[in-house]
Amino acid sequence: MSFHDGLRNKGRTRADMDDRRKAVESFTGVKLEHAGNCTFDPIVAEKNVENMIGTTQVPLGFVGPIKVNGDHASGEFLVPLATTEGALVASVNRGASIISASGGAEAIIIKDEMTRAPVFRTQGVRDSKRVVDWVDQHMDEVRSAAEATTGHGKLVKVRAFASGRSLFLRFSYDTGDAMGMNMCTIATEAACRLIEEGTDIKLISVSGNMCVDKKPAAINFIDGRGKTVLADVRVPAELVGDKLHTTPEAMVETCYRKNLVGSGMSLSYGSNAHAANMLAALYIATGQDAAQVVEGSMVSTTCEPCDEGVYLSVRLPCLEVGTVGGGTRLPCQSEALSMMGCLGAGKAKKLAEIAAALVLAGELSTLAAQSAGELGKAHKALGR
Amino acid sequence: MSFHDGLRNKGRTRADMDDRRKAVESFTGVKLEHAGNCTFDPIVAEKNVENMIGTTQVPLGFVGPIKVNGDHASGEFLVPLATTEGALVASVNRGASIISASGGAEAIIIKDEMTRAPVFRTQGVRDSKRVVDWVDQHMDEVRSAAEATTGHGKLVKVRAFASGRSLFLRFSYDTGDAMGMNMCTIATEAACRLIEEGTDIKLISVSGNMCVDKKPAAINFIDGRGKTVLADVRVPAELVGDKLHTTPEAMVETCYRKNLVGSGMSLSYGSNAHAANMLAALYIATGQDAAQVVEGSMVSTTCEPCDEGVYLSVRLPCLEVGTVGGGTRLPCQSEALSMMGCLGAGKAKKLAEIAAALVLAGELSTLAAQSAGELGKAHKALGR
Amino acid sequence: MSFHDGLRNKGRTRADMDDRRKAVESFTGVKLEHAGNCTFDPIVAEKNVENMIGTTQVPLGFVGPIKVNGDHASGEFLVPLATTEGALVASVNRGASIISASGGAEAIIIKDEMTRAPVFRTQGVRDSKRVVDWVDQHMDEVRSAAEATTGHGKLVKVRAFASGRSLFLRFSYDTGDAMGMNMCTIATEAACRLIEEGTDIKLISVSGNMCVDKKPAAINFIDGRGKTVLADVRVPAELVGDKLHTTPEAMVETCYRKNLVGSGMSLSYGSNAHAANMLAALYIATGQDAAQVVEGSMVSTTCEPCDEGVYLSVRLPCLEVGTVGGGTRLPCQSEALSMMGCLGAGKAKKLAEIAAALVLAGELSTLAAQSAGELGKAHKALGR
Amino acid sequence: MSFHDGLRNKGRTRADMDDRRKAVESFTGVKLEHAGNCTFDPIVAEKNVENMIGTTQVPLGFVGPIKVNGDHASGEFLVPLATTEGALVASVNRGASIISASGGAEAIIIKDEMTRAPVFRTQGVRDSKRVVDWVDQHMDEVRSAAEATTGHGKLVKVRAFASGRSLFLRFSYDTGDAMGMNMCTIATEAACRLIEEGTDIKLISVSGNMCVDKKPAAINFIDGRGKTVLADVRVPAELVGDKLHTTPEAMVETCYRKNLVGSGMSLSYGSNAHAANMLAALYIATGQDAAQVVEGSMVSTTCEPCDEGVYLSVRLPCLEVGTVGGGTRLPCQSEALSMMGCLGAGKAKKLAEIAAALVLAGELSTLAAQSAGELGKAHKALGR
Repeated sequence: MSFHDGLRNKGRTRADMDDRRKAVESFTGVKLEHAGNCTFDPIVAEKNVENMIGTTQVPLGFVGPIKVNGDHASGEFLVPLATTEGALVASVNRGASIISASGGAEAIIIKDEMTRAPVFRTQGVRDSKRVVDWVDQHMDEVRSAAEATTGHGKLVKVRAFASGRSLFLRFSYDTGDAMGMNMCTIATEAACRLIEEGTDIKLISVSGNMCVDKKPAAINFIDGRGKTVLADVRVPAELVGDKLHTTPEAMVETCYRKNLVGSGMSLSYGSNAHAANMLAALYIATGQDAAQVVEGSMVSTTCEPCDEGVYLSVRLPCLEVGTVGGGTRLPCQSEALSMMGCLGAGKAKKLAEIAAALVLAGELSTLAAQSAGELGKAHKALGR
Repeated sequence: MSFHDGLRNKGRTRADMDDRRKAVESFTGVKLEHAGNCTFDPIVAEKNVENMIGTTQVPLGFVGPIKVNGDHASGEFLVPLATTEGALVASVNRGASIISASGGAEAIIIKDEMTRAPVFRTQGVRDSKRVVDWVDQHMDEVRSAAEATTGHGKLVKVRAFASGRSLFLRFSYDTGDAMGMNMCTIATEAACRLIEEGTDIKLISVSGNMCVDKKPAAINFIDGRGKTVLADVRVPAELVGDKLHTTPEAMVETCYRKNLVGSGMSLSYGSNAHAANMLAALYIATGQDAAQVVEGSMVSTTCEPCDEGVYLSVRLPCLEVGTVGGGTRLPCQSEALSMMGCLGAGKAKKLAEIAAALVLAGELSTLAAQSAGELGKAHKALGR
Repeated sequence: MSFHDGLRNKGRTRADMDDRRKAVESFTGVKLEHAGNCTFDPIVAEKNVENMIGTTQVPLGFVGPIKVNGDHASGEFLVPLATTEGALVASVNRGASIISASGGAEAIIIKDEMTRAPVFRTQGVRDSKRVVDWVDQHMDEVRSAAEATTGHGKLVKVRAFASGRSLFLRFSYDTGDAMGMNMCTIATEAACRLIEEGTDIKLISVSGNMCVDKKPAAINFIDGRGKTVLADVRVPAELVGDKLHTTPEAMVETCYRKNLVGSGMSLSYGSNAHAANMLAALYIATGQDAAQVVEGSMVSTTCEPCDEGVYLSVRLPCLEVGTVGGGTRLPCQSEALSMMGCLGAGKAKKLAEIAAALVLAGELSTLAAQSAGELGKAHKALGR
Repeated sequence: MSFHDGLRNKGRTRADMDDRRKAVESFTGVKLEHAGNCTFDPIVAEKNVENMIGTTQVPLGFVGPIKVNGDHASGEFLVPLATTEGALVASVNRGASIISASGGAEAIIIKDEMTRAPVFRTQGVRDSKRVVDWVDQHMDEVRSAAEATTGHGKLVKVRAFASGRSLFLRFSYDTGDAMGMNMCTIATEAACRLIEEGTDIKLISVSGNMCVDKKPAAINFIDGRGKTVLADVRVPAELVGDKLHTTPEAMVETCYRKNLVGSGMSLSYGSNAHAANMLAALYIATGQDAAQVVEGSMVSTTCEPCDEGVYLSVRLPCLEVGTVGGGTRLPCQSEALSMMGCLGAGKAKKLAEIAAALVLAGELSTLAAQSAGELGKAHKALGR
C-alpha cells in the first residue's frame, strides 16, 4: 500500500485503522505508540469519527459521592471526570464532599428545548412578515414535515426574527434523551423545504447563527438551549470553617467582587468561577459534544449569607447533554454514564441534574479556595 | 481493603488506580472494562488528574495534509483530532484539501499574552487611584516579585480597572511555550502580596474575572488572551465549483446572513460557523485545556468575493495553547503534538498557526456545505 | 424672600418659577436671561419637572416631506427634529428626499409591549419554582390586580427568570398610546403585592433590571421593548449616483465593513451608523423620554445590492414612544406631534412608523456620505 | 413666496425662520405657536441646526446645592436639568441633598480620550499587518497630518484591529475642552489620506464602528470614550433612615439583586438604576450631544455596607462632554453651563466631575426609593 493510499484509506476496520496510522507515521516520521491504542473494535466508532488512527487516552478520575436532591436524580453519585488539568478533580471532590455533608444539592430543570434556526432571504420586511404569517397559519404542516424525519423529536415552537431581507426562524424541539442537534438539523431542513415551496422564498443556510450552536450568544443565555437547570445548597458555617478554611463572609465577598462586579466589568456572558472546567471533564468522560462547553460555560453563580452559613447557587441556561446517541455509545463513555445510572433512554434529565450539582461543587470549592487565598498553592501542590 | 478506603485511596501507582477503580465498581455496580484501560504508567498522569481510575478513550482521526504559510509553521501538516462527533473530521479534511490546493493558508500571530486579574478591596475610588499610582511607581519591584516565581514567564504589563471599592489589576505575561495559566496565577499571587504590603489594601481573589479564564467575555474578544491569530486563504472559483459544489456568491451570502447578520442578531461574541468544533478536537488530542475552548470559540470568520473566487479569513483572539506542561506531556497527547512537529520548547507559536489554519479549513467546508444545502445530508451519511 | 427660601420654593406658578430662578441667579451669580424664558404658563409643566426655573430652548428644524408606506402612517410627512448637532437635519433631509423619490419607506410594527420586571428574594431555586407555578395558576388575579390600577394598560404576559434566591418576573403590557413606563410600574407594584401575599416572598425592587429601562441590554435587543419596528426602501441606482454621489456597491461595502464587521468587532448591541441621532432629535422635539434613546439606539441596519440599485433596511427593537402623557402634552411638543398628525389617542403606532422611516433616512444619508468620503467635509461646512 | 420655496428656504435669519415655519404650517395645517418661539437671533444657531423653524422649549429645573470634592470641581453646585419626566428632578435633588449632608461626593477622572476608528480594505491578513507596521513606523507623520487640521486636538495613540480584509485603526485624541467628535473626524480623515497614499490601501469609511459613537459597545465600556470618571460617597446610617426612609442593608440588597444579578441576567452593558436619566437632562440643558447618552448610560453602580452606613459609587466609562463648541454656545445652554462655572475653555473636566456626582445623586435616591418600595408612589404623586 502506497503512502497516499494509506492517508486516503476510508475503511473502518481495525486493519484499516492500523494501515492508516502507519501511513501517518510514515508521513510524519512519528511513532504513534500510545495514540494507536484502542481497546474496542474501531467499527464501533464509525459514526463518531472518520480517518481513525487510534484513540486519545484522557486521564479519568471521579468525584463523589455527591448527594443530589433532584426530580430525576436522587441519591449519592460518583461522577466521572476526564481531564488533564491537575487539581481539578481534587478540588471538585472537596466541593462534592461538602455538599453531601450539607444535605445535598437541590437541582431542578426548568426548560428543555434544543434549537435550530435557519436563515432565509426574502424580498424585504413586508415579505418577511408574509412568510411569518404563513408559517403561523401552516404550523401543523410544518410540524408534520419536521417530525416525519425523526422518531423522537417533537417541534415545540418556531420563533421569528427579521432584519431586512434576512429572516430567521428559530425552531425549538423536545429531543427526548438525545442531545439532539443533528435530529433538529434534519427535521428543520424538512420544514424549510415546505416553507420554501409554500412561500417562494429561498433558504440560505439551515443554521443562521440564531440557533446558536457552539458560540457564546445572548439569545441562548436568556432563552436557554438544551436543558436550563438550577441548583443550590446551604452550607453550614462550621463546614465552611472546618473543611474549607474560610468564612461565609469571605466567600460572599469573593463571589460578589469576582463573579458579579468582575464579570460585569469584563462583560462576560455568565458570572461564575470555572463552570466550564467541570462541564468539559464530564462531557469528555461521558461522550457529550465537547465543543458545547462553550454555551455550557455561561453559568451564573450566586453566593449569599444565610442562616445556616452560606447559600450557593448555579444557573445553567444551556446544558446540552444526552444519554443516547453521539459519543454516549462508545465503550468508555457508556461505562462512565453507567457509573451514574445515566446510560440510555429516560436518563438525560437525571444526567442534567447531576451535572448541575457537579458544577455547584466545583464552584463551591474554588470560591472557597480563592477566598482563603489558596488557589496558586493548590495548583503548585497538585498541578502542572 | 474496605469500600471507603478504595474511594479515598490517594495513591498514584497502577495498583492504586486499579484498587480505586474496583471500589468505584463496587459502589456503582458497574464494570469499567474499557474505561479502566491505560496503556501507560498512571504515575505519568499524576500532575494531570487525581482519583484516577483509568482513561477515557476518545476516537482519534486526522486531517491533512494541510498547507500552512505561517511565520512559525511552514509546510504541510497532518493534524490530529479527537472527537466523537461524526462528520467533523471528514468535513474539516475536505476544507484542508481545498486550502492546500489553493496554495495554503496564511497565518500570523499578532499578540501573545496570558492574563490573570486579581481583585482587591480598597476604601473607594481615591484609594483605588492611589494603589494604581503605587503600582505604576513600583513596577520594577512588582515585576521582580512576579518573575521570581517562574523560570519562563515575563510580566508584560498591568492594566487597572476600578469600580467603587473593587480594584482589578489585569496582569499580562509572556509565558513562552506553556499555555501558562498556572504560571500566571502563581506569579500574580506573589505580586499581590507585595502590593498588599506596599499599599495596605486587601486581596479578595487572585482571579477577579477580568482575566477572564473559561468564560466568554468581551474583554478577551477585544484585547485577546493567549495568542491572537489571523489566517486567510483565497480559493479559486473552479475549486469552489468542482470540489465544494457551490459558488463563491452562495458562500459569501451564507457567511453574510449567517455569520454577520445572524451572529449580530443573536448577540454572539464572535461570528463563525463552528470554530469550537475544530478547537475542541485539537485541544483534546494534544493535551490542551479543553475548557479553554470557551474563549477559543470567539472567532470572527469573513468571506468575501475576490478575483480568484472567494476570500475566507478567521480571527482567533484567544488561542490559549502550549507545547510544554499541562496535558502535553501525556503519552497520546505528546505523540499527537509530535505528528505536527509541535512537541516541546519553541513550538507553541507553530501550533497556534496550525490551529488557525485548521479552523479556517473547518469554516471553509461548513460554509460551503451550508451554502450548498448539504449540512443535514452530511450528518445523515456520516454521523449519529 | 431669603436666598434659601427661593431655592426651596416648591410652587409651580410663573411667579414661583421667577422667584426660584432669581434665587438661583443669586446663588450662582449668573443671569439666566434666555433660560428663564417660557412662552407658556409653567403650571402646564407641573407634571414634567420640579424646581422649574425656565426652559431650555433647543433649536428646532424639520425634514421632509418623507413618504411613508406604513400600516398606520401613510403619506408624506414633515418630521420635527430638535438638535444642536449641525449637519444632522440637512443630512437626514437628504435621506428623506431620496426615500420619497424612491417611492417611500415601507414600515411595519411587529411587536408592541412595554415591560417592567420586579425582583423578589426567595428561599432558593425550589422556592422560586413554587412562586412561578403560583403565578401561573393565579394569572387571572394577577392580571386583575395589575389592570385595576390603569384605564389603558393590559397585561400581556409574565415571564420568569431565576438565579439563586433572586426571582425576576418580567411583566409585559399593552399600554395603548402612552409610552407607558409609569403605568407599568404602578400596575406591577399592585401585582407584586398580591404575589407577596399569596406566596410569602419578599419584593426587593419593583425594577430588577430585567425590564430594562434606559440601559443597553441584550434582553431588549432580542425580545423588544415598546414597539419593534422594521422599515426598508429600494433606492434606484440613478438616485444613488446623481443625488448621493456614490454607488450601490460602495454603500454596500461601507455598510458591510462598518455596520457588520465593525459593530461585530466592537461588540455593539445593534449595527447602525447613527440611529440614536435621529431618535434623540425626534424624542426631544415631541416630548418623548430622551433617556430612552439608549435602548432605541440598538438598531440593526442592512444594505444590500438589489435589482433597482440598493436595498436598505432598519430594525428598531425598542422604540418606546407615546402620543399621550409624559412630555407630549407640553406646548411645543404637542405642536410638533401635530405637525405629523400624531397627537393624542390612536396615534402612537403612526408615530412609530414615521420614526422608523426617519431613522432609515438618516442611515441612508450617512452611509452614502461615508461611502463617498464626505463625512468630515459635511461637518466642516455645516457643523461646529 | 410659494409653498415649496418656503420648505426649501435655506436662509438663517429670523425672517427666513419665520417664512420657513409658515410654509410648514401651510403644509401641515398646524399652527406652531409655541414651537415657533425663539428668544435669540436664529443666526446664533446656524452651526447647530438646518431648516430651523423655531425652538423646542424643554422644562428646566435644577438640583442642589450638591457638594463635589473633585480635582477640578470643588464646592457646592446647582445643576441644571432639562427634562419632561416628572419626579426626576425631585428625586435627584433628594440624592444631592443627602450627598452634601454626607460631606460631598468624591469624583476623579482617570482617562480622557475621544476616538474615531476608520475602516480600510486591505488584501488580507498579511497586508493588514504590513499597514499596521507602516503606521507604527510613520507615527510622527500620521500625527502631524492629523494635528494639522486642528488647533486643540492631540493624537494620543492609534490602536489596530484586523479581521480578514477589514482593518480598523482606532485613533484616540485629547480634545481639550471640546467633546471633540468632529475635530477627531476631520483629523482622522487627514491621517487616513496619508495612510492611503503611503500604503496603497483603500479607506472605506472614516467611521468603522470601532469608534464607537452613539451605539452601546463593549469596547467603549472597557476602554472608555471621552472622560472616564469615578465618584463615590459614604452616607451615614442616620441619614439613610431619617431622610431616605430605608436602611443600608435594604439599599445594599436592592443594588445587589437589581444592579448586579439583574443586569447580569439581562446582559446589560453597565449595571445602574437610571444613570441615563441624569445624563439626558444635563446634556439637553447644557448643549451636549443628547444622542451620546447612549454610551453615557453604561454606568456601573455599586452599593456596599460600610462603617458609616452605606457606600455608593458610580463608574462612568464614557462621559463625552464639552464646554466649548457644539450646543454649548447657544444662549440657554451657555447660561446653564455658567450656573456651574463651567462655560468655556478649561472647564470640561470640571463639568465631568459634576456630572458624575449628579449621576451618583440620582442613583442614591432611586436605589433608596426602590429599596423602600416607593417608586410607583413617587411617580403617582409627581409624575405623569
